[in-house]
Amino acid sequence: MSEAKKVPIGVSARHIHLTKEHIAILFGEGAELSVLKPLSQPGQFAANETVAVYGPKGSFEKVRILGPARKATQLEIARTDAFALGLKPPVRESGNIEGTPGIRIVGPAGEVTVEQGVIVAARHIHFHTSDALRWGIEDKQLLKVRVGGERGLVFENVIARVSDSFALDMHIDTDEGNAAGASTGDEGEIIG
Amino acid sequence: MSEAKKVPIGVSARHIHLTKEHIAILFGEGAELSVLKPLSQPGQFAANETVAVYGPKGSFEKVRILGPARKATQLEIARTDAFALGLKPPVRESGNIEGTPGIRIVGPAGEVTVEQGVIVAARHIHFHTSDALRWGIEDKQLLKVRVGGERGLVFENVIARVSDSFALDMHIDTDEGNAAGASTGDEGEIIG
Repeated sequence: MSEAKKVPIGVSARHIHLTKEHIAILFGEGAELSVLKPLSQPGQFAANETVAVYGPKGSFEKVRILGPARKATQLEIARTDAFALGLKPPVRESGNIEGTPGIRIVGPAGEVTVEQGVIVAARHIHFHTSDALRWGIEDKQLLKVRVGGERGLVFENVIARVSDSFALDMHIDTDEGNAAGASTGDEGEIIG
Repeated sequence: MSEAKKVPIGVSARHIHLTKEHIAILFGEGAELSVLKPLSQPGQFAANETVAVYGPKGSFEKVRILGPARKATQLEIARTDAFALGLKPPVRESGNIEGTPGIRIVGPAGEVTVEQGVIVAARHIHFHTSDALRWGIEDKQLLKVRVGGERGLVFENVIARVSDSFALDMHIDTDEGNAAGASTGDEGEIIG
């Protein structure tokens, strides 16, 4: 019998990644993000800092910034959040923001409106290269992952992302976590 | 080859069912719910009237009332809503509210605080008896339903509810609809 491919689940609440330039505008020249807590992926962290975001219909006052700074500013929200903001962002892999909706972002020192950058993150699993090799999984492969329990379900089209800099973790958003009755620290099993 | 068991999907936003007594308190003696639009189940309707609900952490100002009046007042919310209100309701079938959290409900003429009645509705399919007979499905049976597309997934533990007074429809909440990228009018397929 082959080993069960168990994967820890991380449920991502809405959050934002910012460029260095936008951090300077929102928090002031020379400001840097400070670490609230490290995330599962090495080097990534939740910052103490938050921003407000304003869509055409609604807003969120405290959106957590994830650091470090990135090459492009990107707001990742659940589809429930998208309805509240009045936006229709596509489901995308992180970093693929071409043609996505923009958003107004307000910090303590200033504000910026980006023309694009709002996505619903495509569910995915980070694999360290060694995990992927052991289980015969390739980068970009689409997987099926079962989450058990009262609200059990099978997620299809879960994207494999393989790198020496990743730690094994499955990322889903709050809609997906809530639909599965799952919380960060629960486990899924790759079944196909 | 057997017929594919296709089922229309209805995504239920948070809503409330009220007793006649609570309608009288919230909207005034002699007040009756008025029909905004009929629902998929015969005799059921979305009312023009809404109420506000207050949890320990947050509130919703306009929660749609579904009519007609019921024997017990019941607030059905998604797990995302539960976090916003600061409640931890269990996943339950409609009508099974023993031991569930209470909620404060405010209408234009008065307010009422119920000691129990807040649930996350268990996903289910209404079958007319003829549909159930044709497909060999029994009341209370737990089914697997696949929803395709970019956010494709398979819902497990979907409860079959069979009655001569039901119309074929699968009911999921907004978290489940959003996790599947599905909206009312989309289709699922019973696969087990």
